[in-house]
Amino acid sequence: MISNSGRINSSTVVFLRSRMNTSQTPATGSPATSLQDIIAHAKEYGFVFPSSEIYDGLQAVYDYGQNGVELKNNLKTLWWKAMTQLHDNVVGIDASIFMHPQTWKASGHVDSFNDPMIDNRDSKKRYRADQLLELKAEAYANAGDEAKSTALLQEMGRLLGDNDLEGVRNLIIAEGIKDPVSGTDNWTEVRQFNLMFSTQVGSLAEDASLIYLRPETAQGIFVNFLNVQKTGRMKIPFGIAQIGKAFRNEIVARQFTFRMREFEQMEMQFFVRPGTEMQWYETWRDARMKFHQAVGLPADKLKFHIHEKLAHYANAAVDIEYKFPFGFREMEGIHSRTDFDLKAHQELSRKKQQYFDNEVDPATEKPYGNYIPYVVETSVGADRLFLAVFCNAFTKETVGEGDQQKERTYLKLHPALAPIKAAVFPLVRKDGLPEKAEEIVKSLRSEFRVVYEERDAIGKRYTRQDLIGTPFCIAVDYQTIEDNTVTVRFRDTTEQIRIPISELKAMIGQEVSMERVLEKM
Amino acid sequence: MISNSGRINSSTVVFLRSRMNTSQTPATGSPATSLQDIIAHAKEYGFVFPSSEIYDGLQAVYDYGQNGVELKNNLKTLWWKAMTQLHDNVVGIDASIFMHPQTWKASGHVDSFNDPMIDNRDSKKRYRADQLLELKAEAYANAGDEAKSTALLQEMGRLLGDNDLEGVRNLIIAEGIKDPVSGTDNWTEVRQFNLMFSTQVGSLAEDASLIYLRPETAQGIFVNFLNVQKTGRMKIPFGIAQIGKAFRNEIVARQFTFRMREFEQMEMQFFVRPGTEMQWYETWRDARMKFHQAVGLPADKLKFHIHEKLAHYANAAVDIEYKFPFGFREMEGIHSRTDFDLKAHQELSRKKQQYFDNEVDPATEKPYGNYIPYVVETSVGADRLFLAVFCNAFTKETVGEGDQQKERTYLKLHPALAPIKAAVFPLVRKDGLPEKAEEIVKSLRSEFRVVYEERDAIGKRYTRQDLIGTPFCIAVDYQTIEDNTVTVRFRDTTEQIRIPISELKAMIGQEVSMERVLEKM
Repeated sequence: MISNSGRINSSTVVFLRSRMNTSQTPATGSPATSLQDIIAHAKEYGFVFPSSEIYDGLQAVYDYGQNGVELKNNLKTLWWKAMTQLHDNVVGIDASIFMHPQTWKASGHVDSFNDPMIDNRDSKKRYRADQLLELKAEAYANAGDEAKSTALLQEMGRLLGDNDLEGVRNLIIAEGIKDPVSGTDNWTEVRQFNLMFSTQVGSLAEDASLIYLRPETAQGIFVNFLNVQKTGRMKIPFGIAQIGKAFRNEIVARQFTFRMREFEQMEMQFFVRPGTEMQWYETWRDARMKFHQAVGLPADKLKFHIHEKLAHYANAAVDIEYKFPFGFREMEGIHSRTDFDLKAHQELSRKKQQYFDNEVDPATEKPYGNYIPYVVETSVGADRLFLAVFCNAFTKETVGEGDQQKERTYLKLHPALAPIKAAVFPLVRKDGLPEKAEEIVKSLRSEFRVVYEERDAIGKRYTRQDLIGTPFCIAVDYQTIEDNTVTVRFRDTTEQIRIPISELKAMIGQEVSMERVLEKM
Repeated sequence: MISNSGRINSSTVVFLRSRMNTSQTPATGSPATSLQDIIAHAKEYGFVFPSSEIYDGLQAVYDYGQNGVELKNNLKTLWWKAMTQLHDNVVGIDASIFMHPQTWKASGHVDSFNDPMIDNRDSKKRYRADQLLELKAEAYANAGDEAKSTALLQEMGRLLGDNDLEGVRNLIIAEGIKDPVSGTDNWTEVRQFNLMFSTQVGSLAEDASLIYLRPETAQGIFVNFLNVQKTGRMKIPFGIAQIGKAFRNEIVARQFTFRMREFEQMEMQFFVRPGTEMQWYETWRDARMKFHQAVGLPADKLKFHIHEKLAHYANAAVDIEYKFPFGFREMEGIHSRTDFDLKAHQELSRKKQQYFDNEVDPATEKPYGNYIPYVVETSVGADRLFLAVFCNAFTKETVGEGDQQKERTYLKLHPALAPIKAAVFPLVRKDGLPEKAEEIVKSLRSEFRVVYEERDAIGKRYTRQDLIGTPFCIAVDYQTIEDNTVTVRFRDTTEQIRIPISELKAMIGQEVSMERVLEKM
């Protein structure tokens, strides 16, 4: 099982469980932050649309709308700056989605990037065989029988390790696992299903080649390791960062943008001297946690989840989990990947993937010399980070007292992440107020994203900006014409202050500045 | 023929010509700026690497290296800001690469996004049939026989319009066109070859669907037109901008990043009231030319190329061409696309793609009411813009006199585009100079990308930064320790000035600021 971060683990079980409607754990968060609320708000306010919606959509694929794209871009920019700008020894690349097919042979994806699938003949529904067994193991555990749970998982691991698919099927039947839809155990055989998308490149069948859409961005970094090291004269330790799309033909793709067939990764591979990897693993684990807090995710909604069962290429792995409306789930993985990938590429390509380390080893008093570096990887799903930030920002509050009580919804986004930084409103559509407001927009818009809005009552305009997370609303009234001051209303508190127009750029500029976020990392 | 901008036009002939080695026009630019020099420099200094190079590469696919990705990202950011930040009525989206296959049925790509191909049986080489004929027409024109040239192109247009592929083959033979490799006219039949890449989504053959990798980003905007208009309360005229990958299985993909199988587009679709499209077409045509000049491309290397033969969906089209080392070629297209796409989607999806315009028509004194908007598109290849900017920046100069004469190479990039904004060098590696230099790096790096470099003599360090286009080099010497001043060396002039450390951030910050570029647009 090749994976960036434990494809087969407890976090995947929930997909099946939600499908089976047999949830055994209480929903996390208040009803006000259900995933349905999030999806509805994301669509209604231009953050995320179903893909090709006019053709009834494409399963597990989404488009970012006018506000979503800005929020996502801001997150990507912050990650990029945090990696390449704050670290002298981390540089970026942008490798293509298409890669030579040998890449995926070396990485193991051609042979082993599979999910074991099973169908129920009566319901015609398809399941991941491993998830059916994991669910059963969880049921044992919930019933207090930890030993039985562990034994089942071990037996499953053994069978999958041996690729004994008939054994997996027999185990499912022996455990009495029934399809929740049909209620029967009329199961088909178990088949391995490769998750890579493939296509043909070249103009005719006779010379066309089968190539894959990359299932992870990491390999684009590995195959460029020496190109970057040599042309950039990089000295170990150093990192290569990349943001880009990856594609997986998921059997069960669920939960909005959490698991999509087309998704975006932000990965950094840090190349180190063998033996120093645990130190860097810890350093990056902590740095990444700091990042998530700096972009506004609260500490109590974040936690580490250490992998006990490691992928064959890793000697340490930890996830950073965020408390989504559907529970704590992986947002980022930090993995000590050893020299697995570079070594595999060296073997298959017959091109040395070595680094000459001229630093002197105090033990031998000689340079460390040639070696294949070890790699510590940080890999965060851009769409998952987006979803976490969006969920966290979604706020419903009851304001006022007695009869005046009402509910207020707003997106409490960090100002550096907000799609629109400021909205400028003329109080009325006459007497030169619109012109004055437009003038303010023009004076600010080369610095940050600012919009003009004159439709509807001003209260409604405030509400609309709250719903998309605009941190500042600037109102232009009759006093503005006289003394060049405006009111600035703050999204989170709804407080208003009056300040000179001349101070707007500096005041808002400082609040929305990415530099200030970076300084906290 | 579906096309963003005249796939069959004179600019494509060059690919064939360069392949045939029968160039009839003198190479543009000095030998110092040949495409080979550009490719070599791009690779040697970490701008562009062949994809999966350790496996001997993948044809017509490239990766951006550590400096290339920064330059490209800076261009993308500037375009994005120019579109969405400078225009209140332009917003962005980020649609997925995977779209519902009906999208490409409606757009016409499934049926007509073809190239006519022909093979020579002796050489086993494959050609685009239309390019063979266009080359012949150009030969007639070069020999002074414009009438014959025009007649040939018209006949070809007629045959392709009728999809008379046998007629195309007969014309090739009648015109005596021989394969430049084998020298024979032993041609196969002409076949239409669809340029879209396809893949299967879903987990088993029985329920898997054929989907395409988008051949253009534009349709992602069209299918989201109403989602954006409604959730963003957009009023016509308004635009939707998008940056993203597109894929075309090009038969002849050549000339470095100019024509790749995987490439990136920056497109904006501007929705207008029918009848006003020519005015907006002109507005955007001029705005786009201004953009290219603002990012540093000189006016004399840019020109408009008006399409005389229009695609079926267009009522006006113009390219912005840049003078590449291989001649003036299309970098961007501005097209008045009428209501072709929205109408096609409305028909196929049976979902109204209309806008209600409540503005009052002075002629009827009634609101304009419901209509399908017309569209003016601006579509620039991000990789082509990158290549143009890179070629333009590549500078070789002879400096000094007599024996002291030597050649100097540097990248004259606009500071806002440079991958690294400043490099800080300690004069020597002792006496606290490295620490002082590191301190300066730390004080600047949350604002912009700055690197520290202590290896080699300082002259060599200047040269290395010149070669990647770093506009400012900061040297820390013994005087720095005494009075906190440094020398700043300017890339283009090699002049040096001495300034206080405290002034660095403001001075460099202003020069590298994107805001200043935007203000020129």
